[in-house]
Amino acid sequence: MGTAAEPTQHAAVAELPPLELALLQRYWDAANYLTVAQIYLQENALLAEPLRVEHIKPRLLGHWGTSPGLSMIYLHLNRLIRRTSAEVIFLAGPGHGGPAVVANTYLEGTYSEIYPLVSQDQAGLRRLIRQFSTPGGIPSHVGPATPGSIHEGGELGYSLMHATGAVMDNPDLIAACVIGDGEAETGPLEGSWKAPAFLNPERDGAVLPILHLNGYKISGATVLGRRTDDDVCALLRAHGWEPVVVSGTEPALVHAALAAALETAYAEIRRIQLTARRHGAHGPARWPAIVFRTPKGWTGPRIVDGNQVEGTFRAHQVPLAGVRDNPAHLAQLEAWLRSYHPEELFDVDGRLQPELAALAPSGEARMGATPSSRGGRSTLPLPLRPLENYEVPIGSPGATLVETTHPLGELLRDLYIDTAADPRFRLFCPDETNSNRLGAVFEVTDRLMMEPGQDVGDRISQDGRVVEVLSEHLCQGWLEGYILTGRHGLFATYEAFAMVSASMTVQHAKWLQHARELPWRKPVPSLNILLTSTCWRNDHNGFSHQGPGLIDTVLSLSGSVIRVYLPPDSNCLLAAAEHALLSQNYVNLLVVDKQAHPQYLTLEQARAHAAAGASIWKWAGNDDGGRNPDVVLACAGDVPTEEILAAAWLLQIYVPELRVRVVNVMDALVLPPGDVHPHGLSDEAFEALFTTDVDVVVAWHGYARAFHQLLHGRPDPGRFHVRGYTEQGTTTTPFDMVVQNKMSRYHLALAALERLQKPFAGAEKLAGHCNGMLDRHSTYIREHLEDMPEISSWLWSPPNLWQATSCSYHLEAADIFERRMILNSPPAGNPS
Amino acid sequence: MGTAAEPTQHAAVAELPPLELALLQRYWDAANYLTVAQIYLQENALLAEPLRVEHIKPRLLGHWGTSPGLSMIYLHLNRLIRRTSAEVIFLAGPGHGGPAVVANTYLEGTYSEIYPLVSQDQAGLRRLIRQFSTPGGIPSHVGPATPGSIHEGGELGYSLMHATGAVMDNPDLIAACVIGDGEAETGPLEGSWKAPAFLNPERDGAVLPILHLNGYKISGATVLGRRTDDDVCALLRAHGWEPVVVSGTEPALVHAALAAALETAYAEIRRIQLTARRHGAHGPARWPAIVFRTPKGWTGPRIVDGNQVEGTFRAHQVPLAGVRDNPAHLAQLEAWLRSYHPEELFDVDGRLQPELAALAPSGEARMGATPSSRGGRSTLPLPLRPLENYEVPIGSPGATLVETTHPLGELLRDLYIDTAADPRFRLFCPDETNSNRLGAVFEVTDRLMMEPGQDVGDRISQDGRVVEVLSEHLCQGWLEGYILTGRHGLFATYEAFAMVSASMTVQHAKWLQHARELPWRKPVPSLNILLTSTCWRNDHNGFSHQGPGLIDTVLSLSGSVIRVYLPPDSNCLLAAAEHALLSQNYVNLLVVDKQAHPQYLTLEQARAHAAAGASIWKWAGNDDGGRNPDVVLACAGDVPTEEILAAAWLLQIYVPELRVRVVNVMDALVLPPGDVHPHGLSDEAFEALFTTDVDVVVAWHGYARAFHQLLHGRPDPGRFHVRGYTEQGTTTTPFDMVVQNKMSRYHLALAALERLQKPFAGAEKLAGHCNGMLDRHSTYIREHLEDMPEISSWLWSPPNLWQATSCSYHLEAADIFERRMILNSPPAGNPS
Repeated sequence: MGTAAEPTQHAAVAELPPLELALLQRYWDAANYLTVAQIYLQENALLAEPLRVEHIKPRLLGHWGTSPGLSMIYLHLNRLIRRTSAEVIFLAGPGHGGPAVVANTYLEGTYSEIYPLVSQDQAGLRRLIRQFSTPGGIPSHVGPATPGSIHEGGELGYSLMHATGAVMDNPDLIAACVIGDGEAETGPLEGSWKAPAFLNPERDGAVLPILHLNGYKISGATVLGRRTDDDVCALLRAHGWEPVVVSGTEPALVHAALAAALETAYAEIRRIQLTARRHGAHGPARWPAIVFRTPKGWTGPRIVDGNQVEGTFRAHQVPLAGVRDNPAHLAQLEAWLRSYHPEELFDVDGRLQPELAALAPSGEARMGATPSSRGGRSTLPLPLRPLENYEVPIGSPGATLVETTHPLGELLRDLYIDTAADPRFRLFCPDETNSNRLGAVFEVTDRLMMEPGQDVGDRISQDGRVVEVLSEHLCQGWLEGYILTGRHGLFATYEAFAMVSASMTVQHAKWLQHARELPWRKPVPSLNILLTSTCWRNDHNGFSHQGPGLIDTVLSLSGSVIRVYLPPDSNCLLAAAEHALLSQNYVNLLVVDKQAHPQYLTLEQARAHAAAGASIWKWAGNDDGGRNPDVVLACAGDVPTEEILAAAWLLQIYVPELRVRVVNVMDALVLPPGDVHPHGLSDEAFEALFTTDVDVVVAWHGYARAFHQLLHGRPDPGRFHVRGYTEQGTTTTPFDMVVQNKMSRYHLALAALERLQKPFAGAEKLAGHCNGMLDRHSTYIREHLEDMPEISSWLWSPPNLWQATSCSYHLEAADIFERRMILNSPPAGNPS
Repeated sequence: MGTAAEPTQHAAVAELPPLELALLQRYWDAANYLTVAQIYLQENALLAEPLRVEHIKPRLLGHWGTSPGLSMIYLHLNRLIRRTSAEVIFLAGPGHGGPAVVANTYLEGTYSEIYPLVSQDQAGLRRLIRQFSTPGGIPSHVGPATPGSIHEGGELGYSLMHATGAVMDNPDLIAACVIGDGEAETGPLEGSWKAPAFLNPERDGAVLPILHLNGYKISGATVLGRRTDDDVCALLRAHGWEPVVVSGTEPALVHAALAAALETAYAEIRRIQLTARRHGAHGPARWPAIVFRTPKGWTGPRIVDGNQVEGTFRAHQVPLAGVRDNPAHLAQLEAWLRSYHPEELFDVDGRLQPELAALAPSGEARMGATPSSRGGRSTLPLPLRPLENYEVPIGSPGATLVETTHPLGELLRDLYIDTAADPRFRLFCPDETNSNRLGAVFEVTDRLMMEPGQDVGDRISQDGRVVEVLSEHLCQGWLEGYILTGRHGLFATYEAFAMVSASMTVQHAKWLQHARELPWRKPVPSLNILLTSTCWRNDHNGFSHQGPGLIDTVLSLSGSVIRVYLPPDSNCLLAAAEHALLSQNYVNLLVVDKQAHPQYLTLEQARAHAAAGASIWKWAGNDDGGRNPDVVLACAGDVPTEEILAAAWLLQIYVPELRVRVVNVMDALVLPPGDVHPHGLSDEAFEALFTTDVDVVVAWHGYARAFHQLLHGRPDPGRFHVRGYTEQGTTTTPFDMVVQNKMSRYHLALAALERLQKPFAGAEKLAGHCNGMLDRHSTYIREHLEDMPEISSWLWSPPNLWQATSCSYHLEAADIFERRMILNSPPAGNPS
């Protein structure tokens, strides 16, 4: 780059033919008129009669301030599309400007096509104004119901990342992204400016950022709004963009400047793409950007009650308040509305004048109707190879150690191969792909980075499609933009730091929940989040790296759109991942550790287990099914499964008369009743697993509270004794973590013993053994700095091969430890 | 500013006297040696004998890559402190460099003072190396146990905001903040560069950012690491900093350049401050910053197994793996360790050579011992005036409407007045102070903004101490830095978007949980988070603005550090806020809406209620206390309280024989048993409120699941029927929201009727009334765009003044509606 010293470019004020300028101005008037009408009016939509109190809505809600600027930009993008046939989607970062975007999609005709009752006539206009911010109507924000939108703009910060994700592998698309100077203050948005380092003009479309500076947020000034054009341009230039400034308060001049700026930007985008596609890309492109500085509440009331309004914070929401009680305000509102001359914009039937209607593009070229904004290519299936290709062979269950995520990496690798001709899958990860043992993808693709650098074997290139950036926000936001335009992906991240973008997950789930109710929106591929490096195996990173809270956050959301899987092993992970990658309209949370763990189920068994969501693992217990067990041991998650199995193993060796049942839960949402979540087991199925009255000792991956709440509505939930993660703080050997959280095999076995309804031979001996091991543990690990060999070498083997002696156990069969086998050790030099 | 065109400044390579250079190099060798020793060794700390396998830890954990750079910076800050007596705190953004910071605080002596067993001798050295990343030892990260730290650097993104908060109102402090190029990719960190717009050199200290570019994260390249010095400097300059580059691979040259850069930066900081303090500040200062570009894993193995390691991702963690099994690696490790010549650094007793020890500052000037890093001035009490100053007068309960947060704004205003002479309180808010009805603070202070602008009555100045920036991350992060250095504050934000910084809340709570166990750390003022604009009153913003999830996130954390209050009215909010503002070492979550709501309790009653956490509101029920009620109606939160009261009112009017008890819960953490949270009520107290067996209908502010889990361990929790927020999606009148969530007075009354154990006269009539109102509701609001007058005009009045007729009720007393009074309407032009 090195061009930060360039002078600020102001857009050339090209001549616009007077007739075109007049038409553009009138179209803008129409958009502004409808915006104000939506905020204020419930009747008399076109001011056919003098404005009276009863025409005013009883509650005035909505945001005027950003709206005229949004409409100006929308209008000129329309002009560009008509002149170039470009495919453009529009992202309104200031989602508060909902009425402006609704007005523009109404004027271009898409709104009425989707919502026939909001027709392009008097009756439709009445509906248009009455529905805004009223009960049963539409919210004041851009949202799923807004034609053309893939971005709500309620929680600020994500507009530019959504735009960037939308154009990845979308070579012809231009994402015009309006960023308010309020949103520009957020961290996630500031982080998004680095997009040029991750957009390859050979294969990706273009983002056109339009930084809309109007100086104020709700009531305070904005940092960028107060900076000079030079400073703002220097910032964008330093991030790799080539900005041009369009500013002014005189509409005619701004029309001309914005038209010129968009034409120039478009030409530059196509030049960059053409050059790259002919000659290859060489480093990041200097994509054009526009700095658009116009007054807040432009064309609205200048002075109200003696206070300056236009151009200040007072224009943010409803500039004239109390209109029903204040005749002066009512008169001022009428004058404001009439300043747009609605009678010249719409005919007596309420239809936009034809010479204005002709200014909008037609068909799918309209920004309210672009296919990319309605689900894009999402009907194109993802070519997953049969899972048998990746199956971990299972001799006897629990006897082999495999890095559980490793086979999934191979599946993703083949997905890259099989979508190479029509790229529509990407893996996003904050620099942990190798650490998460998904590194097989680097056999066929690289990490993406447009910035040039020396090759030191780091698998980095501008052709890579693994997107690693140390920002959970960017990883998730880019993926959201990618899937909302119909492509597929996976966000793999450390469990503890998944909370960084938890609010984005909440907002995306809300978006899906609404969007799936809209038949005109195609379903979109699910947001797949893989959490690895979980709280149970942060051996040295310690307390700050332990946090299973995203499970709780996701469980709060609507059952219609969320899924939570805790696969106990690789084959189960494959089954869950297949389902997730092929699903639509969900947030799929997959929680599994990356380290070497025991493997239990064959692929066939895993598929059946995944379909059921929870199963009795008969081989792990001695409950014959014909009668009730004495105790049920339940588990969910990989480490909890291992500990429950070891507890079941101890119980069977020491207390052979005890009937133990082991239940593994891999789909957390089978637990609540069916009216809470569609996966909820029927009463019969639930009771077949957990009985109606037997005590259940549960080893659960997350916070115990999350499991308890899932059981609400099930018979006698008080009999479930849940051990989960608690905030302890520890630096540990792997096993020390489960000891400190009282979820070790010894604690679980003791908990099971406590729950027995009658005395059993061997129970006391087992309790002594467990307490003895727990006593020895702390001293041993401090001396030896690793776990006791009884722990670190233990693997499942049939309990009937063993016999208990006094506080110990002896193997009767051959040395089963020899069967231990670890596959997939981590690549050298790629530490976790 | 406008100086983006300046050429990149490289630090002058001043001459360092050869003797001093040699000493500095040896000190750095000592720090690097101890870093490597911590990662690898469990015995033979100073290599007194040849390195053997049994000297190596069984598990090799830790991060080498960033460590030598951190130590180089620490060393030269030591030099600067000795030369200038500056008060400097050190923030290690790359918290992974824990062993380096531990090594430096050990070398300077603070570590041994705090942890006498880790003494400055052979025995202490053995402990030092063995404790690192081992059971019962210390984690691999900088953390609360690290002397001098106020920042962990585990979850990346917050170093620069913590540094910025630390220097606010701390005029003499310099916060030296090392930012890794990995962290620099995060959104929160990128957002933090705007600090100069919020630091006033007249009264604030200085942040000295040191952007440490070593090119790689775990395994991928960094964006800034790959950019040129010109580009990186242009970016910092565009944000308002004045950067200088220190780069190199040759230690001697880098020593000289860094020494010079720090001296120049220090002189410039003092010049800026002196000028501002003599002549006033005029716009943002151009604070110095350092770009420090050195190899990752500097001085470590260059090549391992044929692969380049130094300067690449392979140096990130443990450059030589499998040392116990690989004799070549063992030999290479020994050569690496001996390259630092430990025998020349420490004497035979394991003590640092005196000429090296003399390089560190002494006493509280050491960065491991600065008072600011240990709680600062936190023992200085906050001068709260008596709450009586702000009391909302209560005639009869529920008969007056007040914007609940308004009196709190007056309390905060007076706090600003009373701390003006010794500023130690700030309010942080994403531009919602007025919207949140806390605007009284603007009677005495302004919004802070160093960027100049025109005064349009926006209460913005460089002298303001209300910090508004549209970034929840910055608001919370700056406040965290402020309180961790011993000052006080409040973060007020919209409930829905509080999840944006939820992960920061989790990390801060973890920090507090550990820090409070360390006697050498003074307690720090609590992190106070006020959530307003709650899910129940987002009348037009709609679904995206509804999210009570932060309650769930906070409830997961350790009971020792978290508190959750849901004050039902203003006086209760005052009582809770007083407690929160005077408390230490907590995360206090206060959830209350900003709109006009009924007020119930006098200040005296509110104080008693706050102290109890939950009380029976006798005036609202007709349960005489002498016998069990027929039903208990419980509520928590302002809107839920109003709805439960209205339900109780209807039940008493229609079903006069029914014994109704109303319980208000304002401290959510009285609900769980005492072993879960210290506020948990005793069994007796819990049963005195909720009985042991009577059904309880609960109106709860948040997700119902959160309330259910709080009850785990209480008698028969299945009898609690909780209505809370559910993900519905709505644009609403205020009441429509509670109808859609089935938490309206009518739903609650119907729920109570369903739970009755015997028939009651009037029950059927009330059910008819409720169902009728619910039937009418949807149609009415769609026609009138506002709530039915029966709803919007309803206020509590004693039920015995009323009588029920067929599906309606008549007032027997004077027109109670006339008593309605709304105080504190919002300021004009400051919309919500």
